[in-house]
Amino acid sequence: MPKTQTKTNTATFERRDILSFDQFTPNDLFHIFTTAKEMAYQVKKKVPSDLLRGTITTLLFYEPSSRTFASFNAAIKRLGGQTIDIQNPGQTSSVAKGETLADTIRTFEAYSDLIIMRHPIKGAAKEAANAASIPVINAGDGIGEHPTQALLDLYTLYEKFGRLNHLTGVLVGDLLNGRTIHSLLRGLSLFEGNEIYLLAPQILKLSPQDKQDFRKRGLKLIEITNDKEIPKTANFWYWTRVQKERFTNLSDYERVKTAFTVTPELMKSRAGKDMILMHPLPRVGEIAKAVDKDPRAVYLRAQIRNGMFIRMAVVSLILGKKL
Amino acid sequence: MPKTQTKTNTATFERRDILSFDQFTPNDLFHIFTTAKEMAYQVKKKVPSDLLRGTITTLLFYEPSSRTFASFNAAIKRLGGQTIDIQNPGQTSSVAKGETLADTIRTFEAYSDLIIMRHPIKGAAKEAANAASIPVINAGDGIGEHPTQALLDLYTLYEKFGRLNHLTGVLVGDLLNGRTIHSLLRGLSLFEGNEIYLLAPQILKLSPQDKQDFRKRGLKLIEITNDKEIPKTANFWYWTRVQKERFTNLSDYERVKTAFTVTPELMKSRAGKDMILMHPLPRVGEIAKAVDKDPRAVYLRAQIRNGMFIRMAVVSLILGKKL
Amino acid sequence: MPKTQTKTNTATFERRDILSFDQFTPNDLFHIFTTAKEMAYQVKKKVPSDLLRGTITTLLFYEPSSRTFASFNAAIKRLGGQTIDIQNPGQTSSVAKGETLADTIRTFEAYSDLIIMRHPIKGAAKEAANAASIPVINAGDGIGEHPTQALLDLYTLYEKFGRLNHLTGVLVGDLLNGRTIHSLLRGLSLFEGNEIYLLAPQILKLSPQDKQDFRKRGLKLIEITNDKEIPKTANFWYWTRVQKERFTNLSDYERVKTAFTVTPELMKSRAGKDMILMHPLPRVGEIAKAVDKDPRAVYLRAQIRNGMFIRMAVVSLILGKKL
Repeated sequence: MPKTQTKTNTATFERRDILSFDQFTPNDLFHIFTTAKEMAYQVKKKVPSDLLRGTITTLLFYEPSSRTFASFNAAIKRLGGQTIDIQNPGQTSSVAKGETLADTIRTFEAYSDLIIMRHPIKGAAKEAANAASIPVINAGDGIGEHPTQALLDLYTLYEKFGRLNHLTGVLVGDLLNGRTIHSLLRGLSLFEGNEIYLLAPQILKLSPQDKQDFRKRGLKLIEITNDKEIPKTANFWYWTRVQKERFTNLSDYERVKTAFTVTPELMKSRAGKDMILMHPLPRVGEIAKAVDKDPRAVYLRAQIRNGMFIRMAVVSLILGKKL
Repeated sequence: MPKTQTKTNTATFERRDILSFDQFTPNDLFHIFTTAKEMAYQVKKKVPSDLLRGTITTLLFYEPSSRTFASFNAAIKRLGGQTIDIQNPGQTSSVAKGETLADTIRTFEAYSDLIIMRHPIKGAAKEAANAASIPVINAGDGIGEHPTQALLDLYTLYEKFGRLNHLTGVLVGDLLNGRTIHSLLRGLSLFEGNEIYLLAPQILKLSPQDKQDFRKRGLKLIEITNDKEIPKTANFWYWTRVQKERFTNLSDYERVKTAFTVTPELMKSRAGKDMILMHPLPRVGEIAKAVDKDPRAVYLRAQIRNGMFIRMAVVSLILGKKL
Repeated sequence: MPKTQTKTNTATFERRDILSFDQFTPNDLFHIFTTAKEMAYQVKKKVPSDLLRGTITTLLFYEPSSRTFASFNAAIKRLGGQTIDIQNPGQTSSVAKGETLADTIRTFEAYSDLIIMRHPIKGAAKEAANAASIPVINAGDGIGEHPTQALLDLYTLYEKFGRLNHLTGVLVGDLLNGRTIHSLLRGLSLFEGNEIYLLAPQILKLSPQDKQDFRKRGLKLIEITNDKEIPKTANFWYWTRVQKERFTNLSDYERVKTAFTVTPELMKSRAGKDMILMHPLPRVGEIAKAVDKDPRAVYLRAQIRNGMFIRMAVVSLILGKKL
């Protein structure tokens, strides 16, 4: 099929692949966000929808991910679509016998209107899209991308603040490897006037190369070394996990770890009253449970639901269905 | 959400959790049974139902159970509802990374209207319900409870005899550990005049504590030691499996085992013509295959189908949908 | 249920099992093919279908097979039916505890209108059908049969040539063990005037017994030893995989292997312009990727889609639903 995988300033997503966050223009983002907002309204009304009735989407998950799997599943079924759920096809005979990804994709495309794929290898989504005559959504390709996660993070900011420019944010944790961090920075660099504070242990700081790139794209980046330096004016904190295993010297970890845990005290001392606290999940202790009930904590609320709305928007735009 | 988990004498199930059999009053049971009967009629008519259209239920099975999984799946889909099937999420990255059950539940609740959970650890269903703002049905929590199984057993008796009081029953097999046995005794103790014969190997007898408790609740319990003592007037036999492994002395097992196997001969000599023979399944030899065609054997017939009707009833009552 | 498993010359499939290819008469085949053609048209029109609305089919896969699983799944959902997906039930407690296949089947039949089963043991589908009061489709029973695969192969020929008699074909690869090869030969032997060339390594030739049988059924079989002997008049080539592991002497394999690989050169030198190149998939190198874009190559196109159409036809005929 003729597919447009290069950047486009048109808002038409019909039959397009979603492979990388870089394919989106600001206009694309706003088009998706507007649609997601309509989806949220649709769900709130509790009126069953038949928008995707008659469509079949294959969820092809080479790697387990119950969270992303459930989110896409819900997005499709909330709109009356059907799914074919294929988990761990690598254990099945065809793949075990040595079938190529291209052949597998060309099999599933015969049965469905859309393929949503998670795969452990970077670039696999692109390879699948090249083989397929139907659209492919990348739901995570190893250390590569997971564009709908980046969309939901930006949508959460947009929904809260009504804009994606002139925002002040704090990114915390593993800034060196974090896939969601890099996508978020790329997204924010599409808009002017954004100012981002970076808080990471020495060994997990944003790489000099990345720092240079994002500055060139227009982002203002300020590195801090302690949670006491978090500006009270920040619109959002985006917290991520710091893995103890990354440290060769445990005393280094012990020394820094408090700077990477959100507690009610930290919220009280450094968080503005209109900010939001985000986290891509799963968390394992870096945000204290007591913070969950803080209305500014959106990781277990808006962020998760927004993931579903974004996926409802993206799937229906690709399948050419309008509310 | 405001949830009523304590005993209630109202018949309103909307948005309630189903965690333990003890939460039901006799009125609750009759309300569920009446609804199950309507569901059975609905299925018999073969008219497709849209009762649960637009609803999404997450089946979150931390432990494999194709039987219970299929029964809930069928119950929901027979009524036009959709499911998100999550099996063995413990193998996925989030749980493997150490995410708490509460965080996992708060993720899935964003996508669905109801969570049905099976978990290997007793108390997990209660923990999930505490975290969730949507209703949770316990589909088995380890050695804890499996309330819809108890409901279907009682419904099978009710459907056959039109009452749950003044029944004579025989419970056979592992009365010490059997989860279904204990729930059934609890259910029968809600009604007066029930008389239960207990037949178990010495080492698998109902514990003195349980015996005392159930007698205090009003059940008449009579222990017997041989299948020749089964009263011919019994309305039902509820047979369960005696695991050979429970015996340290194999000759003990050999000595008693015939008392714990149903054969056509035993049916002929001890079973009344209007009784029913029940078993929670799976069976592995304790009921001879030749007994299957006896019309009084309901374990492969009414009991299984009733499981689906009961689950249709419970799910639609919780989701507030009336036929 | 009263089931007709013997050969029948009636075209009524309602509530019949599909266990073996041998149960089909030529009339049966044409009836299925006509229905499959209607299904193809239905899919092409892109009008959502409700033909199977209100029906539930259990996909009981004791052996992983994402390809066949997805094909049946798509077939059912394209027609508005619902599925209960049970994969690897052998790992669940009931089967692990030693439950018989008959008991398992009698459980699932209570929930559904049709069971589609894949099982590693030959004869399992027949055993399941004997236990079931609802129809059973064999989706592969070990080295036994996989009748819908044979149907889709014959349908692909029928759709292309408008007939199943007086065809010239070439079967290549593992003719000794290939399940699809044997079914195809059986199918072609139902019609007169078919002439089949056989190309296989010495150790993987059709067994003398099979050769004798198929000749007795009226097929003309001609053995060749080299791809240069492939007749240019052949209507179709049916290529299969030759497993290196079958050879004890690697130099034997090296000597013959080029005769068992399709290349653009071979297509150019030996393939007629109106022939089709078939393969049951998965392939692992025996057809060069460069051949894929040849319009005569139907393995990644017509064959896969026809599999879905055939399964749409078979399932709806069994469930008694007419377009």
